[in-house]
Amino acid sequence: MNPQHIKPALLQFLSADEILEDASAWLTDQRSRYTGTADAVVQPKSVAAVRQLMRFCFENRIAVTPQGGNTGLCGAAVPEGGVLLNLSKLNRIRSINLADNAITVDAGAVLQTVQEGAAEAGRLFPLSLASEGSCQIGGNIACNAGGLNVLRYGTMRDLVLGLEVVLPNGELVSHLHPLHKNTTGYDLRHLFIGSEGTLGVITGATLKLFALPKTVETVWVGVDSIERAVELLTLVQGGFAERLCSFELVSRFALALSSDFSRIGQPVDAPWHILLELADSMESGGLGEELAEFLLAHGFDNAVAAQSETERQALWTLRENISASQRNLGASIKHDIAVPIENVAGFVADCETALQTAFSGINIVVFGHLGDGSLHYNTFLPGVLDNGVYEYEDAVNAVVYENVLACNGTVAAEHGIGIVKKQWLPSVRSAAEIALMRAVKAELDPRGIMNPGKLLP
Amino acid sequence: MNPQHIKPALLQFLSADEILEDASAWLTDQRSRYTGTADAVVQPKSVAAVRQLMRFCFENRIAVTPQGGNTGLCGAAVPEGGVLLNLSKLNRIRSINLADNAITVDAGAVLQTVQEGAAEAGRLFPLSLASEGSCQIGGNIACNAGGLNVLRYGTMRDLVLGLEVVLPNGELVSHLHPLHKNTTGYDLRHLFIGSEGTLGVITGATLKLFALPKTVETVWVGVDSIERAVELLTLVQGGFAERLCSFELVSRFALALSSDFSRIGQPVDAPWHILLELADSMESGGLGEELAEFLLAHGFDNAVAAQSETERQALWTLRENISASQRNLGASIKHDIAVPIENVAGFVADCETALQTAFSGINIVVFGHLGDGSLHYNTFLPGVLDNGVYEYEDAVNAVVYENVLACNGTVAAEHGIGIVKKQWLPSVRSAAEIALMRAVKAELDPRGIMNPGKLLP
Ligand SMILES: Cc1cc2nc3c(=O)[nH]c(=O)nc-3n(C[C@H](O)[C@H](O)[C@H](O)COP(=O)(O)OP(=O)(O)OC[C@H]3O[C@@H](n4cnc5c(N)ncnc54)[C@H](O)[C@@H]3O)c2cc1C
Ligand SMILES: Cc1cc2nc3c(=O)[nH]c(=O)nc-3n(C[C@H](O)[C@H](O)[C@H](O)COP(=O)(O)OP(=O)(O)OC[C@H]3O[C@@H](n4cnc5c(N)ncnc54)[C@H](O)[C@@H]3O)c2cc1C
Repeated sequence: MNPQHIKPALLQFLSADEILEDASAWLTDQRSRYTGTADAVVQPKSVAAVRQLMRFCFENRIAVTPQGGNTGLCGAAVPEGGVLLNLSKLNRIRSINLADNAITVDAGAVLQTVQEGAAEAGRLFPLSLASEGSCQIGGNIACNAGGLNVLRYGTMRDLVLGLEVVLPNGELVSHLHPLHKNTTGYDLRHLFIGSEGTLGVITGATLKLFALPKTVETVWVGVDSIERAVELLTLVQGGFAERLCSFELVSRFALALSSDFSRIGQPVDAPWHILLELADSMESGGLGEELAEFLLAHGFDNAVAAQSETERQALWTLRENISASQRNLGASIKHDIAVPIENVAGFVADCETALQTAFSGINIVVFGHLGDGSLHYNTFLPGVLDNGVYEYEDAVNAVVYENVLACNGTVAAEHGIGIVKKQWLPSVRSAAEIALMRAVKAELDPRGIMNPGKLLP
Repeated sequence: MNPQHIKPALLQFLSADEILEDASAWLTDQRSRYTGTADAVVQPKSVAAVRQLMRFCFENRIAVTPQGGNTGLCGAAVPEGGVLLNLSKLNRIRSINLADNAITVDAGAVLQTVQEGAAEAGRLFPLSLASEGSCQIGGNIACNAGGLNVLRYGTMRDLVLGLEVVLPNGELVSHLHPLHKNTTGYDLRHLFIGSEGTLGVITGATLKLFALPKTVETVWVGVDSIERAVELLTLVQGGFAERLCSFELVSRFALALSSDFSRIGQPVDAPWHILLELADSMESGGLGEELAEFLLAHGFDNAVAAQSETERQALWTLRENISASQRNLGASIKHDIAVPIENVAGFVADCETALQTAFSGINIVVFGHLGDGSLHYNTFLPGVLDNGVYEYEDAVNAVVYENVLACNGTVAAEHGIGIVKKQWLPSVRSAAEIALMRAVKAELDPRGIMNPGKLLP
């Protein structure tokens, strides 16, 4: 089909307000690294409209790129021509079922809306990311989003009970149920989770809910080494178990940047920092004291506990502003990696040595979710400006990922593969696995119309 | 290859004690319903031997049926000729990693051995089934086993971090890591989980560990209706949240059978019974009183709390002996189903009416894991003896499953499809989904040698 005929043809089954006039805002990714093209940008308002759209694109072999809040960090929602299918108008909470502790939502519902809807019903939807005000459930599922509560509640994969998906040919596969036990053949739900829009369009989901926390204790602890931080983690997991929700690592360098940027004094001085939070769904008056005593008893005496919600927010601000504060260092090459927790200390030491050898004077900002072994590992080359940094990307990545893989880690923890890491997929997946992925893709998307150019190398 | 030549040929790469002389014990399933045939029954002692075996069988197009403890309840481990590959001798705990809260084991390790190994290291491996003394981790994974702690810890699917699998052609795919965040393309781990031996041989796994419980409170509550039991569940999940580990439903009829059989008095009299258990990983002195007050405050006054471990065991014995005690009713047609919890009461009422209409006088034993909507629903036709009952199976199933499906439920909650439910797969999976399953199967097992005749209709 002539690309110019696509937009008019869509009016056969979409209303005028489901087709955007000015679509430029949706064509560039969050990091302004990639700008794509699209022959039409649509925002259907019903699942039926999505099905008709897919049928039309399937028949006419038109590429379709699904898009949620466009907050993804690997370029996976940037279209390469064809139709950009933005889910923003399919955004209702469909129902809440307290007996099953489940919520059913449209894929375009914004994460924060779902959190708020759950809270109004007296329940917690625990996925929490800095982008929660704009990212969508469909995007969270398609990327298997992680964030701050994974230690306790898992990633998005662990929170999905049922999915509703429109296949590339327009067929609907719907399993919007809250069943916790259901073993009926190969699990196809988990194929769609993390598939980055390459297998079909997620239009709805049934998600798990939990009890709201009634007691929260937040502590900032300075430690001398990552080894000592891992000791603390192991001890707290033994002593406080499922009450542990967050266990964040921050390097001295990263804290200094954020502290300057946030104009908040540093809680303690130390080479490495831990922000840990316990939560209990029952009123639990003594939890704070128990934690304080526990830390002292195990020799963690360089610690500050939040005494109020304001103090708690200040501690979290220091953690959350690292991303923004590091921009002062210039352009960066970022890594979203995970290694087994027992290997984190070795990884950080060895990788720094290797990077300094190859790129003398390189700045490294290390922080992240130590509690689940996932690190933001950002590198800054002094004097290299803006996009000039991408000249060095392959060389820096080679050093970082070689060290990650030597530690039995992964090159993509929570942001996905998209465009950015396609070339690295063969380093973490065998040829047999990639062949299987291609077979799955060929079966579900025989015409190769779904999100071309992403994920598979 | 001439079947008679298989056994001698295996000696090229297996030692004599890896090939069984008398294999009859392994050819019949747990319920003595199916007896298969095998040209050889092997118990390899290393992953390398499994790989050589698979290469040999692949080249010679010999069927291979993997088998663990042979405790499965859907006939999925009964061989149809070829090689029966029993994993019992690949049974070590390979390592425990406390920092990552993970244990890595051979697939043939018995579930109870893994529970004990974890406990020795001060951690909990939470999967718990009545067959835990003989079922194996590989079988648990291949069936996605459920059991008593799903409410809190999930099914086996939720407990697997990494897998080591030998593909049908002998190739090894190994991801034995404890990573909690790893999103690198389509998730193939979840294809193997629940695949019932039809895609490859699981040889090892890295599993999640948790803190050991330090406080346990067990209460038996009588209620007037399932509706009221669901109210109790919702209240307890609001009030005690993640401390709730088990929430088991027992009908008056099922309790009477078990009480007679176990020679233990009935804790309370009521139409429906709940056995609920809270656990806390921290010492929590007041939990029992809090629960007692909570129950009273919400009008659940027909309740008995275990005052000692002996009393706790007695309550659990009543629950666990239902299966054995019902044998006095004669042969039965059993169902392993799940429906959304909000639909359980409606399902039980409607299905009983429908069954009594079709099979007047039928006895129905209902019990199960109400906390996750999964029910054992066993039916007994008065006067029909032994295998004679199977004449009525299709007709009884048709009634039961029609009611299950009308409630948005599943015909296979935790025991799998195997041989028993193959014909029902199309009632819960669409044609597109089954086509995708076949494509996955064809890609991984192009010669169709893995566990023929199981799962796919
Ligand atoms: C400030 C900030 C902080 C962040 N923090 C985190 C974090 O802590 N943890 C984390 O995991 N991520 C984080 N992210 C990344 C991002 O927010 C998440 O990946 C999020 O899940 C993306 O959702 P989205 O709706 O914006 O998806 P998009 O960016 O629109 O799309 C992402 C991918 O999903 C696909 N997709 C979207 N919707 C659908 C659908 N309905 N059906 C099929 N495919 C679909 C797209 O095709 C694309 O491949 C952060 C991002 C920012 C900007
Ligand atoms: C008394 C009793 C109580 C039970 N209670 C429960 C319960 O509460 N919840 C529940 O879910 N189940 C229950 N079961 C069913 C059964 O115990 C479980 O399904 C268990 O997970 C099966 O493990 P197994 O090692 O015995 O597997 P097997 O019966 O040997 O095999 C089962 C399936 O797994 C495959 N398989 C086995 N090992 C491997 C491997 N290494 N690689 C690939 N495929 C493999 C087989 O081919 C077969 O398809 C119960 C059974 C009994 C007898």
